[in-house]
Amino acid sequence: MNKRLLLTGFAFALGAGLSQTAISQVKPEILVKQRQAAMTLQGKYMGPLGAMAQGKAPYNADTVAFNSAMLDALSRMPWDGFAPASKDATVKTAALPAIWSEPAKFQEAQDNFQKAVQALVAVSRGGDENAQKAAIGAVGKTCGGCHQNFREKQQ
Amino acid sequence: MNKRLLLTGFAFALGAGLSQTAISQVKPEILVKQRQAAMTLQGKYMGPLGAMAQGKAPYNADTVAFNSAMLDALSRMPWDGFAPASKDATVKTAALPAIWSEPAKFQEAQDNFQKAVQALVAVSRGGDENAQKAAIGAVGKTCGGCHQNFREKQQ
Repeated sequence: MNKRLLLTGFAFALGAGLSQTAISQVKPEILVKQRQAAMTLQGKYMGPLGAMAQGKAPYNADTVAFNSAMLDALSRMPWDGFAPASKDATVKTAALPAIWSEPAKFQEAQDNFQKAVQALVAVSRGGDENAQKAAIGAVGKTCGGCHQNFREKQQ
Repeated sequence: MNKRLLLTGFAFALGAGLSQTAISQVKPEILVKQRQAAMTLQGKYMGPLGAMAQGKAPYNADTVAFNSAMLDALSRMPWDGFAPASKDATVKTAALPAIWSEPAKFQEAQDNFQKAVQALVAVSRGGDENAQKAAIGAVGKTCGGCHQNFREKQQ
């Protein structure tokens, strides 16, 4: 049996506090690069879902399931890259100062995104196309929750 | 209960063939950016594990579990970014032509890495520190399987 077709369940144990400790030893430029990488990949897996939800691409249940699973992991990856030390990075970033001046609001935006992804993951296991498309739309909205307030407007 | 502390199990349905179709519409430069992003994040989550396995950082079971789960997803992400169309990318890449001239060998290197990550994920759920460190070492070896043969030597 091809391992690519196996269903592999696993558990997430989130060591948020612990990873903060490790993160404190990482160079500011690396923190920025890593968080941008997570955003790039969120775009990779969210893009095709958004196209489906908007009727611009044909619905495909396998893609919904796979991309949702990838987003489940990716939705946990960017945030420790916004550690205060990352403000000193000498590389280009669209991160706005509000990230650090309004931490509660930034945290709330992250939480909303993660909750929406969890809801998508939950419905991605069933075969309800409409529920999946609604959940995809809800995730899309929460992307905006950060991008509106905490990222420089893109040209 | 904080959702960050919940254990969330989910299933992976790998739509490899399907994502190839979608990938064919993506610009070569984006393919390169996305696959490099996946490698960057593999480094983010593998680095601390490697340090633990080598005794350079204190052992932490939660970090092993979390980082292994992230690697489980990340180990599936780079490969469609090496689609033949990505050879036309006008951006810097360390990818060697052997990727496309020796596809079976490249596939084998990917498979070895994914298998080693799966083995790590399996032991990351238990509390056997030595087994986990051995599994981390095994993953590290398979990173080299690609980097030795399919990536330009890094300065």
